[in-house]
Amino acid sequence: MEIGSLVFDNMDQIDFTGPFEVLSRLPGHTHHSYSPTGDAVRDVRGLTIVPDGAIADAPALNVLHVPGGRGVDVLMENEEVLTWLRKQSGSVVLSVCTGALLLGAAGLLTGRRATTHWASLDLLAEFGATTVDDRVVVDGDWVFAAGVTSGIDGALTLAARLCGDEVAQGIQLYMQYAPEPPFDAGTPETAPPKVLAATRADMAEVTQRRRETIRRIMSGHAHP
Amino acid sequence: MEIGSLVFDNMDQIDFTGPFEVLSRLPGHTHHSYSPTGDAVRDVRGLTIVPDGAIADAPALNVLHVPGGRGVDVLMENEEVLTWLRKQSGSVVLSVCTGALLLGAAGLLTGRRATTHWASLDLLAEFGATTVDDRVVVDGDWVFAAGVTSGIDGALTLAARLCGDEVAQGIQLYMQYAPEPPFDAGTPETAPPKVLAATRADMAEVTQRRRETIRRIMSGHAHP
Repeated sequence: MEIGSLVFDNMDQIDFTGPFEVLSRLPGHTHHSYSPTGDAVRDVRGLTIVPDGAIADAPALNVLHVPGGRGVDVLMENEEVLTWLRKQSGSVVLSVCTGALLLGAAGLLTGRRATTHWASLDLLAEFGATTVDDRVVVDGDWVFAAGVTSGIDGALTLAARLCGDEVAQGIQLYMQYAPEPPFDAGTPETAPPKVLAATRADMAEVTQRRRETIRRIMSGHAHP
Repeated sequence: MEIGSLVFDNMDQIDFTGPFEVLSRLPGHTHHSYSPTGDAVRDVRGLTIVPDGAIADAPALNVLHVPGGRGVDVLMENEEVLTWLRKQSGSVVLSVCTGALLLGAAGLLTGRRATTHWASLDLLAEFGATTVDDRVVVDGDWVFAAGVTSGIDGALTLAARLCGDEVAQGIQLYMQYAPEPPFDAGTPETAPPKVLAATRADMAEVTQRRRETIRRIMSGHAHP
């Protein structure tokens, strides 16, 4: 069984590396990463990752993993990547964070129950998805994880579906995933109001530009 | 303020990439990664990461971050790396998983309260450390995280100490770190007995070889 992760410039690296920790350990499965050109990619904070190949080199995947991050804004209008996503999303898909927006831009979210990063959650409706404000959302063979670190929870959920609970639990034990965040501040509902306001302000411009990009894409679809 | 992460072949990538997600976002701090030679490194499951430079190129660090993984077994006897750790560990240190064994091999754990991955926890005593079975252990300016994913909790703890609670909470909110593991199986105490037995068996040979390496190193120190 072939698992493939899309990697790209300005992704958020842990959207990829969190699930990689789980997916690369699934018995009977082989994991590879693919960038649009096969070149190394640089995440939004500067981490350089060398993929296993270009998307054009990927075999037919049994599991497609799509991370998110700032870089999705450009890729939402990259026809080569969107065509590849359409081709590779036939069986199992793990969407992490704003990777869901890429799947939406590829026209793959219509009628699906889906989630994404809290700051982009209302954008999913633009693609005809039913927005679900849960950390992990399972819709048929697709698993959607919310923002960034939720990809770890999503990948473990997927691991259990693909290989059974004991395999997922063994990986969880190996990676000592019994989280103890020092604060209860990981969601808009739990973060201190001042912290939420500052984080929203930091992300406002990106979110507004993203909304405009999505509306341009969707109006293009409506009037080809 | 300069933050530097050691990266190396056969590390466990999320020991590095989990904290990177936090440390690369600290205001007033610059993050770089350094491999022993400056060449790209391949993690134990095959992820290739390109560092920013070689350890010999690193400036004096204000924060040293040491991940772990299988690769520590070789590095525990690499004098160049051990010398570098001794030189760079003067101020703040974040040890993740079996990165603690590297710090121990460098002679830096004597008298410290420390933790590491559950499967290697009893090995810390060989280095003269006081073993603490907590997920995150703070000892003066040093923060020790237990296994693998605990590096995220350790990095957020360190972020709060370096930049204040609100900065750490803002990063936690951005990365939507409100974990919901699908199972309660992340520690030896909570994992199903069958899963624990299988995982222990998988790790037994590595752990035994590691114990022999440490005893060889420590007997060399005792009788130089």
